[in-house]
Amino acid sequence: MNFSSKLLEDAVAEFAKLPGVGQKTALRLVLHLLNQDKGDVEKFSAAISKLRNEIQFCQVCFNISDSAICQICASVKRDRSTICVVEDTRDVMAIENTNQYNGVYHVLGGLISPMDGVGPSDLEVDSLVERLKADETKEIIFALSATMEGDTTLFYLNKRLKNFGVTISTIARGIAFGGELEYVDEITLGRSIVTRIPYETSLPK
Amino acid sequence: MNFSSKLLEDAVAEFAKLPGVGQKTALRLVLHLLNQDKGDVEKFSAAISKLRNEIQFCQVCFNISDSAICQICASVKRDRSTICVVEDTRDVMAIENTNQYNGVYHVLGGLISPMDGVGPSDLEVDSLVERLKADETKEIIFALSATMEGDTTLFYLNKRLKNFGVTISTIARGIAFGGELEYVDEITLGRSIVTRIPYETSLPK
Repeated sequence: MNFSSKLLEDAVAEFAKLPGVGQKTALRLVLHLLNQDKGDVEKFSAAISKLRNEIQFCQVCFNISDSAICQICASVKRDRSTICVVEDTRDVMAIENTNQYNGVYHVLGGLISPMDGVGPSDLEVDSLVERLKADETKEIIFALSATMEGDTTLFYLNKRLKNFGVTISTIARGIAFGGELEYVDEITLGRSIVTRIPYETSLPK
Repeated sequence: MNFSSKLLEDAVAEFAKLPGVGQKTALRLVLHLLNQDKGDVEKFSAAISKLRNEIQFCQVCFNISDSAICQICASVKRDRSTICVVEDTRDVMAIENTNQYNGVYHVLGGLISPMDGVGPSDLEVDSLVERLKADETKEIIFALSATMEGDTTLFYLNKRLKNFGVTISTIARGIAFGGELEYVDEITLGRSIVTRIPYETSLPK
């Protein structure tokens, strides 16, 4: 594209780095911002910069948080004996939206994926083991995407955690195979938390 | 959505204000940024803020520019006797990409649209009239969208400019190159029969 301005070109190039945003979409978004009030654009720019610089991860469950301990971990109403293990913060949001779960979470920060070079040491696995040693945990619920990576992670974690004397379960496979957790509708997701089954039972026979 | 962090919620809300970006897409983009290096996110944020605060509009043609006079208006190679009137900077870019035009531009900054409350006084119309009075202009080419708004603007501008003794033309309208006749809409096809041109004229020079 022939840009009439270096500033415009730079801004479009930055937007085009976002996933699913091409040059034409980037240009449309940038021209939209150019038509907004300076104050609004400043707010947009500041929100992003502030997010990246000030965001924290909960020291207990590693969810995105504004403080050292997240609201869920700090809440006295939550059942600390149940830990739901998820991939990322979007999954926490999805499960919270179902209003079917009252335990706490553990955010792995990804799934084991040899293809992408992501191994157990890249995820919050050791910290989960530490929690099991220290906490009053009675049950671990795995709520991972029903994908190759999710299943691999589930297999690995079950092996590492099964001797801690806690019940290990996985959300029921009411969710379609190949489906990613964040896109599942709330009823299906809620039902699959309620009807969770022991890991061994969940394996295909 | 239940956000675990106010910072996250703010950033998602800002992204969701962009045209065509919903809450889920906004969240996906924000989490993508959260996974990038702080320096990269700072660059993204700075590019937007800088764009909005430092961008200028060319004092001659009102195209987006880094300086008071844009590169096209400042170039000695461009033919100043022909002005191409367009809606916005994207149209300038599109025409520049064709490498078929060597004149200068005039960016209206929109089209007349009574439905949206946009009248001639909201556009760079008076400045175009001033250019015609002062400049050595011989021809005005209108390159406006073939929509209701484009036609209204064309009608209005033609009325205001026709007594300045310059040739007024509009880019050819008809069936697109590579287009198959049976798929062309009826209005375009009908109009292109009525406004047919001699075969010799239709050939590229």
